[in-house]
Amino acid sequence: MRAVVYAGPKTVHVEQVPDPRIQAPGDALVRVRLTAVCGTDLHVIAGHLPGVEPNAVVGHEFVGDVIEIGVAVQRIKPGDHVMASDFTACGRCRWCERGDHWECAERAFFGTGTAFGPMLAGAQAEMVRVPHADATLFPVPPGCSDQAALLVGDNLATAWVAVERAAVEPGDAVAVIGGGAVGQLASLCAQTAGAGALVVVEPHVQRRRFAEAHGALSAAPETARELVHQLTGGDGADVVIDAVGGNGPLRAAFELVRRRGRIVSVGTHTSPGFELPIARSFAEELTLTFAIGDSIRVRRRLLALIASRALDPTVIISATLPLADAPAAYAQLAEQRQLKVILDPTR
Amino acid sequence: MRAVVYAGPKTVHVEQVPDPRIQAPGDALVRVRLTAVCGTDLHVIAGHLPGVEPNAVVGHEFVGDVIEIGVAVQRIKPGDHVMASDFTACGRCRWCERGDHWECAERAFFGTGTAFGPMLAGAQAEMVRVPHADATLFPVPPGCSDQAALLVGDNLATAWVAVERAAVEPGDAVAVIGGGAVGQLASLCAQTAGAGALVVVEPHVQRRRFAEAHGALSAAPETARELVHQLTGGDGADVVIDAVGGNGPLRAAFELVRRRGRIVSVGTHTSPGFELPIARSFAEELTLTFAIGDSIRVRRRLLALIASRALDPTVIISATLPLADAPAAYAQLAEQRQLKVILDPTR
Amino acid sequence: MRAVVYAGPKTVHVEQVPDPRIQAPGDALVRVRLTAVCGTDLHVIAGHLPGVEPNAVVGHEFVGDVIEIGVAVQRIKPGDHVMASDFTACGRCRWCERGDHWECAERAFFGTGTAFGPMLAGAQAEMVRVPHADATLFPVPPGCSDQAALLVGDNLATAWVAVERAAVEPGDAVAVIGGGAVGQLASLCAQTAGAGALVVVEPHVQRRRFAEAHGALSAAPETARELVHQLTGGDGADVVIDAVGGNGPLRAAFELVRRRGRIVSVGTHTSPGFELPIARSFAEELTLTFAIGDSIRVRRRLLALIASRALDPTVIISATLPLADAPAAYAQLAEQRQLKVILDPTR
Amino acid sequence: MRAVVYAGPKTVHVEQVPDPRIQAPGDALVRVRLTAVCGTDLHVIAGHLPGVEPNAVVGHEFVGDVIEIGVAVQRIKPGDHVMASDFTACGRCRWCERGDHWECAERAFFGTGTAFGPMLAGAQAEMVRVPHADATLFPVPPGCSDQAALLVGDNLATAWVAVERAAVEPGDAVAVIGGGAVGQLASLCAQTAGAGALVVVEPHVQRRRFAEAHGALSAAPETARELVHQLTGGDGADVVIDAVGGNGPLRAAFELVRRRGRIVSVGTHTSPGFELPIARSFAEELTLTFAIGDSIRVRRRLLALIASRALDPTVIISATLPLADAPAAYAQLAEQRQLKVILDPTR
Repeated sequence: MRAVVYAGPKTVHVEQVPDPRIQAPGDALVRVRLTAVCGTDLHVIAGHLPGVEPNAVVGHEFVGDVIEIGVAVQRIKPGDHVMASDFTACGRCRWCERGDHWECAERAFFGTGTAFGPMLAGAQAEMVRVPHADATLFPVPPGCSDQAALLVGDNLATAWVAVERAAVEPGDAVAVIGGGAVGQLASLCAQTAGAGALVVVEPHVQRRRFAEAHGALSAAPETARELVHQLTGGDGADVVIDAVGGNGPLRAAFELVRRRGRIVSVGTHTSPGFELPIARSFAEELTLTFAIGDSIRVRRRLLALIASRALDPTVIISATLPLADAPAAYAQLAEQRQLKVILDPTR
Repeated sequence: MRAVVYAGPKTVHVEQVPDPRIQAPGDALVRVRLTAVCGTDLHVIAGHLPGVEPNAVVGHEFVGDVIEIGVAVQRIKPGDHVMASDFTACGRCRWCERGDHWECAERAFFGTGTAFGPMLAGAQAEMVRVPHADATLFPVPPGCSDQAALLVGDNLATAWVAVERAAVEPGDAVAVIGGGAVGQLASLCAQTAGAGALVVVEPHVQRRRFAEAHGALSAAPETARELVHQLTGGDGADVVIDAVGGNGPLRAAFELVRRRGRIVSVGTHTSPGFELPIARSFAEELTLTFAIGDSIRVRRRLLALIASRALDPTVIISATLPLADAPAAYAQLAEQRQLKVILDPTR
Repeated sequence: MRAVVYAGPKTVHVEQVPDPRIQAPGDALVRVRLTAVCGTDLHVIAGHLPGVEPNAVVGHEFVGDVIEIGVAVQRIKPGDHVMASDFTACGRCRWCERGDHWECAERAFFGTGTAFGPMLAGAQAEMVRVPHADATLFPVPPGCSDQAALLVGDNLATAWVAVERAAVEPGDAVAVIGGGAVGQLASLCAQTAGAGALVVVEPHVQRRRFAEAHGALSAAPETARELVHQLTGGDGADVVIDAVGGNGPLRAAFELVRRRGRIVSVGTHTSPGFELPIARSFAEELTLTFAIGDSIRVRRRLLALIASRALDPTVIISATLPLADAPAAYAQLAEQRQLKVILDPTR
Repeated sequence: MRAVVYAGPKTVHVEQVPDPRIQAPGDALVRVRLTAVCGTDLHVIAGHLPGVEPNAVVGHEFVGDVIEIGVAVQRIKPGDHVMASDFTACGRCRWCERGDHWECAERAFFGTGTAFGPMLAGAQAEMVRVPHADATLFPVPPGCSDQAALLVGDNLATAWVAVERAAVEPGDAVAVIGGGAVGQLASLCAQTAGAGALVVVEPHVQRRRFAEAHGALSAAPETARELVHQLTGGDGADVVIDAVGGNGPLRAAFELVRRRGRIVSVGTHTSPGFELPIARSFAEELTLTFAIGDSIRVRRRLLALIASRALDPTVIISATLPLADAPAAYAQLAEQRQLKVILDPTR
């Protein structure tokens, strides 16, 4: 089959690779209808994640059709039209029962090397093997587009988990650091949860315009504090969502949060340490929490919101390209010329 | 001053009455900018509430300007531009500290006789005396219209409390029984809280059209069950809000709720009993709860939502009339020719 | 094998019946170590539940050892030492994923005829067939006694669900109607959840003494209101748990609850209607909710509490008898001469 | 009057100072029945807090009798027997309405210099002036001892807020760093909230013995991880409460917390920074929150728990001394020879 493979630092190729096959009783094989490129993929092909070897298939977002199942699979069957979580989990352990699938000991993350679990081939391909298919896959409901279902599998789940963990309540003032795919979706999710004042903080003017066109206010990083304080009578935001990751954006979050406020970071952190302003955090009773998208936990809720048109994540899709154009898609995302690119392996 | 007074069953007149004056250290006098007619007022002038005597000033919704305060008032001062809760509470007792101001032993309800506390003259007047002014009054924030602030004082608070008590979560399927002022606002509030499928159940076609124009689906009572079941895969609504009151609407709520669902009634109930379907309620683990709007508890949140334009309650206002036209306003509301009528005592 | 069978109104016999066998891929067979008689069993043998035919095996509480599994069972294996929920559920549907296993379309209740799902032979026997074994069974953790594990399967889960649904918060004043097995456990669970003033309302003096010996206050029904009001400054209980069922106890709950309070009924209700005091319920903003024990949802939490000795449900066990003495056990429970009787089929 | 005053680094004297008097309309004067020495006082007299000048009266825990009130005080009156929060707050602003009194702009902290608000004379004295008396003071309920009421004002409120902010749920495994007064009370509060496995981590053997005698397990710092992991199947604690403060104890908390767990620090932090293990915090979805005791918010709940004997904080009191012995009390606390010392200014 054809697949997008890692071909050296910041380089992907579209190559022929062996077809995947069922390896365990809980596996399923899925013929991919749509896949996509995520900000995480840019980290993956930067070349510093362990286990990302040349010719490794990358990508972790997809929808498709089940073509084969292992003998232990009970909830789905060949022919099912499904969406997928970006990582697998057993669905049965104490973590999974609590809804914390990310903590499952059997977690594996599609197409990201060995940093987050055992190696698992990616989904930017014509077919993909899905371990723990009963937990990882879910039927695309009638009336839900493939595009929306794909986003539920990762970016929208990540955005929603930020809002959920921050316990955004109706009327809360929310600042979102970052106007990329996850940040824009976090803005939409915060609106769905009833956010009051809502500011997307983003250096690029086009992404600020996008946020404004979709219900938020926006600010460049250097003016964010002034706007947030103006909107909140000088208090700061009830909730700050860091949708970028890294120490700089997290420091920016501390600039925007009010006393007794909550910071949730769903951006990736790879640096070992962060200089937490602890005396201030104590004196102002701050909360800092880190969360990772969990589509398995939140997909029913998100699909209900999509079905009722309370939430439409597909607005962030800026291009749909054939699989063969994956190298261009990666390049354009790296240059922030796209917000979200879908790849179609059937073209 | 001029005021709307009860003049016999289903009859109001606009009459000259004595100006109110400060009677207790916690009182304030407010010059009324806007007042309004509420569905509750139709009950009041029906003539069967205790203590509604001829020449009693009616009405309980208002915004205005503080013109005098008692010696114990600390949080507001003459000249303040304020909104008001429709009932007073001490703001300091165990109930008030919990946010349950309705249960306060010093509760008094403007312009509704003695059914809900000691007699307190109403607000459909040029001036109104406000006991416990520190708790009952609240500054109208800059940028908030008088119309919106007035609605926060009763109808919007009632609608919000329905959503709050039902613990509507994003994606929940919600049915609202009744497309009057409170029902339409409950629809808006449920949307703000992230409702998924949302159906306003209402016999009058114009009110159904209004609901549809403001983000909801709608159904006549006889087709509501079919629509709700169709939207929820046959399960029924997660939440049913009864915004009408009385035994019939509550029975209708039981027709629409799913197993393990929640019914919240914010409509007025005056009949002593209701035949609860107890075997079914047990077998399906239902929850039934009654709630009364509490503007004092929820006003900050509602004003934040209004300020950020996440919620605009003023869409329900169908007419603004001079105080002198109060009799016409009452008549048109009784005939459901108006959704919400504002009265202007300055005209 | 030997089993307790229904033998006509209010009569059980211990008889030889055919051994159960695996009937579906998700089934398991369990050799019973301990079983028990529940208040529900008295309803079952009263003879008015549908589907309770002569020679039907009764009983729904048990712990034991897995002796055989169907081909689809993944989480348990022969030799496992397990506790069981009193009803089965698929563990995978939308209801089960929400933790509402009682609402699962595949629910079946051991030994209770067809009132709550398809016929399923009971557990007062040497062996029992367990559908949906992956969801229904759970390993008995090291250090947890069989007696405690058995109670987690029904009575303790019911008591806990009452406290959970009532959202008992530390310091809340709680009244429990009924000092039988579930009522006494509800008292213990409420204490675990931090109840402040706690009153068990029970006519029989010995059961009142038991409640007092285990951390609660107690009152006869006719003095309960006075005691509860005295303890709460005249307000009434924040939470009333009806652990008996039927209209009388529910009426008693309304006598004890404070304004804005919560009534949770976990007692069985078979009468079609209940005259709800609706005007008062509205004016006082009451909440009434019905709940059914769900061991599958709460067993991990309960087992953690038992393991840490924060909760010991076995104190309610008043006798352990050989299976052959089941008729005597039923009789003594019916006469309230026992609080909880365990039956041992290995003796 | 006599009072305990700062007399240079690590030194207090008992001296005659001028009697306090009413300075603002919301003030009250309280004749102190009991006061106490808190761990915070050791920081205060260390000499590095701003505004702690020689002859400043120290101390912030007290109960007593109201002897005079300002003209604006409405909720208490001379003769009232009252407990007090350790800091004052206006009781009326947006922060206070939310229950976040610590964030109130008018906060002042008794006897701690100017680090936490404007200078306010301390309570280790025969009399104390109480600003915002309506919010700060609260009647000691009948049957509540002065000792218990005093502890509600600071140490118990701090312990409770730790448990509240950590959202300890029944069955949760909890580790408490520190076996001083707040740590021991946090252990009791966690038990009240239904903690399952509970470990107090403390180097001093006597304090470990105390924890064990009051319902917890205990461990020395070097063996804590092993015990916590053994109790939790290798997972770590659901909740870790840091009751000491400073970077070392917070690092220890990270050693004990499970994936997806919550760390709450109620110990004082004065160092500007803390090296947060951010990559791990992200990968394990940790939550870190800082909280400060707020007696005003939680006192009703705590008093209800004390009244019902669900919680008895007075067990931590290791000595009651006359006010004149304050220097000895400070010395013994500094040497950890006392857990909690009460001072009696009437002796």
